[in-house]
Amino acid sequence: MTAQVPRGLAGVVVTETTLGDVRGREGFYHYREYSAVELAATRSFEDVWHLMIEGRLPTSTESAEFARRVAELRTLPDEVRAALPAIARASASAGPDAGPMAGLRSALSLTGAAAGFRPLYDLTADERRDDALLISAVVPTLLAALYRLGQGLEPVPPRADLGHAAHYLYLLTGEEPAPEYARAVERYLVSTIDHGFNASTFTARVIASTGADLAACLVGGIAALSGPLHGGAPSRALDTLDEIGTPDRIQSWVRERVLAGDRIMGFGHPVYRTEDPRSRMLREIATGFGGPLAEFAVEVERQVEAILAELKPGRELHTNVEFYAGVVMEQCGLPRAMFTPTFAVARVVGWAANVLEQAADSKIIRPAARYVGPPPPVPVPAA
Amino acid sequence: MTAQVPRGLAGVVVTETTLGDVRGREGFYHYREYSAVELAATRSFEDVWHLMIEGRLPTSTESAEFARRVAELRTLPDEVRAALPAIARASASAGPDAGPMAGLRSALSLTGAAAGFRPLYDLTADERRDDALLISAVVPTLLAALYRLGQGLEPVPPRADLGHAAHYLYLLTGEEPAPEYARAVERYLVSTIDHGFNASTFTARVIASTGADLAACLVGGIAALSGPLHGGAPSRALDTLDEIGTPDRIQSWVRERVLAGDRIMGFGHPVYRTEDPRSRMLREIATGFGGPLAEFAVEVERQVEAILAELKPGRELHTNVEFYAGVVMEQCGLPRAMFTPTFAVARVVGWAANVLEQAADSKIIRPAARYVGPPPPVPVPAA
Repeated sequence: MTAQVPRGLAGVVVTETTLGDVRGREGFYHYREYSAVELAATRSFEDVWHLMIEGRLPTSTESAEFARRVAELRTLPDEVRAALPAIARASASAGPDAGPMAGLRSALSLTGAAAGFRPLYDLTADERRDDALLISAVVPTLLAALYRLGQGLEPVPPRADLGHAAHYLYLLTGEEPAPEYARAVERYLVSTIDHGFNASTFTARVIASTGADLAACLVGGIAALSGPLHGGAPSRALDTLDEIGTPDRIQSWVRERVLAGDRIMGFGHPVYRTEDPRSRMLREIATGFGGPLAEFAVEVERQVEAILAELKPGRELHTNVEFYAGVVMEQCGLPRAMFTPTFAVARVVGWAANVLEQAADSKIIRPAARYVGPPPPVPVPAA
Repeated sequence: MTAQVPRGLAGVVVTETTLGDVRGREGFYHYREYSAVELAATRSFEDVWHLMIEGRLPTSTESAEFARRVAELRTLPDEVRAALPAIARASASAGPDAGPMAGLRSALSLTGAAAGFRPLYDLTADERRDDALLISAVVPTLLAALYRLGQGLEPVPPRADLGHAAHYLYLLTGEEPAPEYARAVERYLVSTIDHGFNASTFTARVIASTGADLAACLVGGIAALSGPLHGGAPSRALDTLDEIGTPDRIQSWVRERVLAGDRIMGFGHPVYRTEDPRSRMLREIATGFGGPLAEFAVEVERQVEAILAELKPGRELHTNVEFYAGVVMEQCGLPRAMFTPTFAVARVVGWAANVLEQAADSKIIRPAARYVGPPPPVPVPAA
């Protein structure tokens, strides 16, 4: 049996889930039984958060109650707040690309400790859910505080009277965002809560399968998300737009890259063979706001898809979530260094839901390796 | 194909390795081509560290040079040192069992950021190895500093003139350890550097497969190691000895537990069907030191094995690494809260070696999940 397993376990089913799935050929993905894009169009982040954690959409009473409950969890433990300046300084050494994720990884790890998180298997299902809500609720607080400290600004104290997305923007800037920006970011966040069984979700579930605490699981998710092969770095796509610069340069710039065998950031997806449904939604939002960046992005998309169809026929390379996510976040005034971390604001809810699901299974995830070195035992030579 | 994959991927070969293996039926495990126990009996921790990272044992010149090199990496970045008091306070909230691992997870994460670690695939093999040595070298410094801060003591500044094991004990107590204690701990550390493809090693490799930086990978390893199902918590076995208390209570205490279906901590291993070779080595060390604890442990082992053979015939339940590891660490004066973290002092070298091996493969590890919820798309009800 073992010899037939494909490299990287591609396509090997490691678990069953009721959280959702991606249908790559149809360009469709869903959370539980609902279209994720439809949820993003019609529901608040908190409602979908409830769907993922509780298994169903809230009633209108439950909706208000859940939103109030998670809003009250935004304040950081004192010990974490005390550590943030040093974490911000350390993260600055990691540079603008890696720093925010390394800072989040460290600060979230610490928050789990400060909150006294215990091993999953020592907790009731209710206690596990409490930990899941707490740790997801503080991610915007941690990210925004680290960002502001890195800019030499004081962190903004959390409030409980704004929705999750609006509050995240408020924590970054200290000002209440325009409702249309808050809603655009909210739709983006809802659309990135989960997306099938990616490497960070798998990592979180492997750690969960050891019975480790919820913060340990999410720290692993953040760690895997920070890997360049994972995807989810919308700033790279925006950097591409900047590099191209003007519409007249699209043809030469793209052809040169494609012929050199380089990937064009923002195009192509391991699962989708059609347009990425998240891309379609985000394009709509971006062009709804309008402006030169959105127009340029649409033109780049049009020309790049034509060039890719010509030079790589049959490959079905379309824009992925990164392409228009970068445009929308730029339009909404998010600093570019926060694009990938903003992805984590949403995805942490998906990871937490996956961890809760995994915790219901008591079997550790532990595959095997095949030793292919020289046969032991060779006698150890004298030192 | 997918339907036949066993739960938890048990026995599914996910990668090839030249780092080592465990032969459960023979009671034998090895690092590269050498018996791990023989290495522990004859070589320094640094020599075996060199073997894991460089692929071969060092010559005597290389041995001195490598030991000097890693000794010089023991000092923490300033930003990390600044964050340690707050990390120690936060970890204290996680309690004496979980706190030290949660603290290490946070502090090691921060050290990678402060050291400016970059994604694996952006680095040359030499740069990756430099990161691997640095992050492994600081683990004792981080652990001992957090431990001392938790006790209200000042951290002890690192020195470069002691071997890795002796230096770890020195950092904990501020006093140079007796050579026989340093050597006993060194043998234990060598014997726990690696042990086949366990869940923490797998986690580190999954994260590595995304191209994330070395600290991200090791943070995942620490997170998985902290799970109760992972194993590697020698304090639990020692707690068992304390609970039994006196030789006359062994029979009733053990029979009661076994008949209630409880596991006896320190006995049984998922892979070994014979005596755990680490247990044999550690028993020798423990009885070499002698004293009432070692004598009691030997008596408990003798009686428990007999009871288990009677009540669970054919199961081959023997002491595992945890049982005598706890005894030896207690004899050497290590505080009980540091037993599991001490395991991490050694295992971090194994994880790092695994990460370097994984980095040579450019394929992301990403299995699949099967959606088993209600079929989508169900129209989203109005909010």
